[in-house]
Amino acid sequence: MAMVDIINKKRLGKVLSKEELKEAFVGYFQGEIPDYQMSSLLMAICLRGMTDQETLDLTDIFIQSGEILDLSMVNGVTVDKHSTGGVGDKTTLIVASIVASLGLKVPKMSGRGLGHTGGTIDKLESIPGFRVDLTQEEFIQQLNTVGVAIISQTAHLAPLDKKVYALRDVTGTVESIPLIASSIMSKKIASGASKIVLDIKVGKGALLKTQEEALEISRLMKKIGHYYQREVDTMITYMDIPLGTSIGNALEILEVMRILSNEENNYLVALSKALAAKMVQLGLNISIHDASLRVEESLKSGRAYDKFMEMIKAQGGDISGLRVSSRTQDILSTKSGHVVDMDAYRFGKLSLDLGGGRRTKEDHIDPKVGIVLKKKIGDDVQVGDVLCTLYLQDDAPFIQEDLTSYYTFTENQETKNTDLEEVV
Amino acid sequence: MAMVDIINKKRLGKVLSKEELKEAFVGYFQGEIPDYQMSSLLMAICLRGMTDQETLDLTDIFIQSGEILDLSMVNGVTVDKHSTGGVGDKTTLIVASIVASLGLKVPKMSGRGLGHTGGTIDKLESIPGFRVDLTQEEFIQQLNTVGVAIISQTAHLAPLDKKVYALRDVTGTVESIPLIASSIMSKKIASGASKIVLDIKVGKGALLKTQEEALEISRLMKKIGHYYQREVDTMITYMDIPLGTSIGNALEILEVMRILSNEENNYLVALSKALAAKMVQLGLNISIHDASLRVEESLKSGRAYDKFMEMIKAQGGDISGLRVSSRTQDILSTKSGHVVDMDAYRFGKLSLDLGGGRRTKEDHIDPKVGIVLKKKIGDDVQVGDVLCTLYLQDDAPFIQEDLTSYYTFTENQETKNTDLEEVV
Repeated sequence: MAMVDIINKKRLGKVLSKEELKEAFVGYFQGEIPDYQMSSLLMAICLRGMTDQETLDLTDIFIQSGEILDLSMVNGVTVDKHSTGGVGDKTTLIVASIVASLGLKVPKMSGRGLGHTGGTIDKLESIPGFRVDLTQEEFIQQLNTVGVAIISQTAHLAPLDKKVYALRDVTGTVESIPLIASSIMSKKIASGASKIVLDIKVGKGALLKTQEEALEISRLMKKIGHYYQREVDTMITYMDIPLGTSIGNALEILEVMRILSNEENNYLVALSKALAAKMVQLGLNISIHDASLRVEESLKSGRAYDKFMEMIKAQGGDISGLRVSSRTQDILSTKSGHVVDMDAYRFGKLSLDLGGGRRTKEDHIDPKVGIVLKKKIGDDVQVGDVLCTLYLQDDAPFIQEDLTSYYTFTENQETKNTDLEEVV
Repeated sequence: MAMVDIINKKRLGKVLSKEELKEAFVGYFQGEIPDYQMSSLLMAICLRGMTDQETLDLTDIFIQSGEILDLSMVNGVTVDKHSTGGVGDKTTLIVASIVASLGLKVPKMSGRGLGHTGGTIDKLESIPGFRVDLTQEEFIQQLNTVGVAIISQTAHLAPLDKKVYALRDVTGTVESIPLIASSIMSKKIASGASKIVLDIKVGKGALLKTQEEALEISRLMKKIGHYYQREVDTMITYMDIPLGTSIGNALEILEVMRILSNEENNYLVALSKALAAKMVQLGLNISIHDASLRVEESLKSGRAYDKFMEMIKAQGGDISGLRVSSRTQDILSTKSGHVVDMDAYRFGKLSLDLGGGRRTKEDHIDPKVGIVLKKKIGDDVQVGDVLCTLYLQDDAPFIQEDLTSYYTFTENQETKNTDLEEVV
């Protein structure tokens, strides 16, 4: 069937067979189908949807376009996690350390940041010597010895998904539940872990806007996992504020160390504990109550902190060499009131402007820069209070902009809902 | 606004401002927006629709991308027509001759055929010497002296529509009422006639499948015409069979001559008379009854025939040089029964195979080849009857395929509905 007929079929709301999906997507992978036909098909899929079978078929086509990591040589139960990410999101580093300290194996492939969100790999690279490019043998060996290894996503896993995602990003075809599900799940299945916990973020700044959409993608991703004999559990969380108090690569590593040392207690800590508990519940096949107790114990005893340090050392990192900038600037509030909201997107952009992120794949990152938030949602602020501290590049001018506008204040005590919501 | 935001806005079903439409479409025209973003936007438009205001705005953007033909130097009322075309469609040649013979001015720009449908310009070029590339001055002068001139569509009118249409053709984004309306109307407005009759074809082989869609596009095209102070009338016609008895360029010119000589009486003749009457009604501002009488009178008196000959001579054509192939092949039926349907698409393809059409814009056409249908819908056929006669190229082998399969037979007397339906 010609590509234009496949596009027309989906435009009319009909179901595509696996053969038709292959003709379109494998043809695109091989360069036979041009971008302009694929983007038109993707938009038709966004607006007409896909059946579960079509989504399963597309996921399989993505997976088959590359390698599937063989983790059979890993001794123990492998548990992976995925978050849709966000500004200041360092949950991966926290939960991987906790879960690995409890005897489970955490084989984690992470990405680099692009745009206003940071990437786990960039954060780890702020530690001098840290290697994110272990060979497959080194990866498996470290899982057997340390229990956790975090490496950069290879181009060999679901490469077609990567090509399709790059096109979706520039053609307004990102927001489709079947496309999001097949994209995430193809990478997770190819990454080889037998159990997977997915953190599904909902909110006006997230891909999914409503609880209903989150429940639908949760159902779909569990179904895909089941098809490949992987146990999948999901957690739906609200996400519209910067996670934790630090934004910037070295600053976030320091924050992870503080959290693993039980020196922080905020939404990020609660979220990390909840995610870790889900992974432990799934991995050890115990109740969520027991899993939560073990997570608390791991943190309290310092075993999670030790595991984090063990991983850094195993991957060649020298934590004593971690540096943040000494050129800092306190930002004072020009308003007073009760903080009810913070603009995560603008904070992410600011971090980018300071040199902490990349606008294109080729940009160089300065790991020493960033932002430490001093006031958070729920706090009362007076004019002249320090809202946040900026860590600037050595030769950078001070920021003249009034950052007070990044915060929303009210007189009364309403605060934004940041409760965790769980889906069974 | 970035193109991806414009696409997302339409994907979410929101209304685009004229500024946003300009950013997208003018940007595309100027090569700043790539094909893959435009095709994604076009698919979103197909599935989310456009308001009347958006359609008016897009039509205006198409028109402003090129010249608007100035016909103010033409003495008299200018009336144009448009048909969506089809296999064997020679209505333009018939109705233009009739209408011009009744004192109206018919400034007609026509296209070449591509794929399985023929083009009016190709048909005229089968007449030795016929010039389809008159200058603007020659075009206007011939309208003043002869009353009708048929020339090849210039690249100067609505060139952006041409670029967008080429993309729609290969991205499954043809079937959208607002896009079809803005495409047709931008060319018609730019062509300059003050009154326009549109032949809207409905049927399983046509772009529009239902009467409701046809009524909707009729309403929309009238509204666009009104905005530009053009009087627009429409006729909705059923179209799924080859029009008339001949397919092939020189053969169709001969058929037009027979029709203008009152030697034929079939669906094509009825359709042509109805279209001509609409144009006369609109152009002379008289009742459809009176207009029909004048059309009959023009044909009966031979004035329409004379006008056709006058136009050919004025454009340099020598009708005595018209030739059809002398290498013919009668196709005999291998079945018997009552003809209830004929496959217009396959007949069009066959004509292409014989050398009468082009697969790509560069293909050379042989004007002498084609098909003359001997049996039509409603006829009874016995095994061995001649179904059609093929006119082959001098050195071409005879066709071995059993063409009986192009016809559908039944025992009973049900015939396909070929009635004209009119919309007031």
